[in-house]
Amino acid sequence: MTTVTVIGGGNVALHLCKALFKSPDIVLQQIYSRNKLTSHFDEIEVDKINNLELIKDSDVYIISVSDDAVIEVAKSLPLKDKLVVHTTGSVTMDDLPPANRKGVFYPLQTFSKSKAVNFKDIPICLEAEFQNDYNILESIATSISNQVYKIDSSQRRSLHLSAVFVNNFVNHLFYVGEQLGKDKNISFSILKPLIEETVDKIKHINTFDSQTGPAKRNDIGTINSHLNQLENYPNFQNIYQILTKSIRETYE
Amino acid sequence: MTTVTVIGGGNVALHLCKALFKSPDIVLQQIYSRNKLTSHFDEIEVDKINNLELIKDSDVYIISVSDDAVIEVAKSLPLKDKLVVHTTGSVTMDDLPPANRKGVFYPLQTFSKSKAVNFKDIPICLEAEFQNDYNILESIATSISNQVYKIDSSQRRSLHLSAVFVNNFVNHLFYVGEQLGKDKNISFSILKPLIEETVDKIKHINTFDSQTGPAKRNDIGTINSHLNQLENYPNFQNIYQILTKSIRETYE
Repeated sequence: MTTVTVIGGGNVALHLCKALFKSPDIVLQQIYSRNKLTSHFDEIEVDKINNLELIKDSDVYIISVSDDAVIEVAKSLPLKDKLVVHTTGSVTMDDLPPANRKGVFYPLQTFSKSKAVNFKDIPICLEAEFQNDYNILESIATSISNQVYKIDSSQRRSLHLSAVFVNNFVNHLFYVGEQLGKDKNISFSILKPLIEETVDKIKHINTFDSQTGPAKRNDIGTINSHLNQLENYPNFQNIYQILTKSIRETYE
Repeated sequence: MTTVTVIGGGNVALHLCKALFKSPDIVLQQIYSRNKLTSHFDEIEVDKINNLELIKDSDVYIISVSDDAVIEVAKSLPLKDKLVVHTTGSVTMDDLPPANRKGVFYPLQTFSKSKAVNFKDIPICLEAEFQNDYNILESIATSISNQVYKIDSSQRRSLHLSAVFVNNFVNHLFYVGEQLGKDKNISFSILKPLIEETVDKIKHINTFDSQTGPAKRNDIGTINSHLNQLENYPNFQNIYQILTKSIRETYE
């Protein structure tokens, strides 16, 4: 049995702790959080501490805090020669302090407190300084997910950037579609089947071939009419122009 | 029984003809196409013509050709006082020629020849000059879809624009994510669970509340690091900047 301590109390920590707590191959020993944990953690019946002096011995310590706090938290741990990993896309492994053995345990997913996720389908990207440590991380990852990948820091930085495009930016485009509809009393639900098909398509066709629309066809009449419709939304108009340009040049 | 003639041979015409042909409440009388129909139409066993002189009497004529050809095709029809509608998001009903009764039958979905769609889940947006004609269009629409909406030309123009954002532009962001990964030998499949969750989230949470990421947090360090990573991709860098600006100003 591998013993794990999670450090952090945010959304990633919450869903990771739930998955680890349920796994028969893992002992989730403690959850450390500086601030009081939310009631979402109540169902995870393990030792919860907010004083680092109470931290127990574990095989692995997983730091799951916001990107800019990872290093500071890692430095604050009263540990030596332990395996200490973080769950962050944007922090390289080498940035962790040298007191402990370094690694990364990065679940590539977007988490909300109020929405359950199935960890089995979440890709977990692993990295470690030493092969033995990698094996430990792999055993933990495979006990909670069916998709485990060896990903180095440079690849992870790239994945994190891609995730901003396919998640953060895509969500904002959904927001734009919803806002434009509100002006005309159109329910956003009319657009949802189209959104679902947009995603379903890329399971069957690659993203290059699945592109359609006025930008790809270089249909100047429709493009100009759309830009006119957006004249009261300067940011949305800019988005339209830049994305149209990028699509046009992709198919030139 | 309502008799329908479809005019056109593209993707929308194909899937619409398949749905109409299957419907027990509709008689799909003829398919007219100037060019020879592809073999995808073979399974639709109806009269296929490429000479307008052979066109028979029908209750409704549905023009399903590219946006910029709709008016020209409508003008070429040897019909008088018939119900003639088009399937296009960007052409207003009033632009149709006055020889016939006008209407619109707009299925809001993206269609590919090679990918089957379930028409039952596709929103169909209807408009007609006269209430009787609207009722005819509604009976056809409800015989093939569970989602039928009364949408005027101004609303349809807005929906068409929203569709560009949530489909065309979203697909291009998926393409960006795939391209960035290729540089680092990362399979696009690692990103697919994140993409599915991005869409699944907006079923439960509105698009404003489901936004996450460095732009919303105004995390300048991560944003600048991402912009540096994109220095060899000027278009992608522009997309990143414009979308980040729009997200930041949405949450100011």
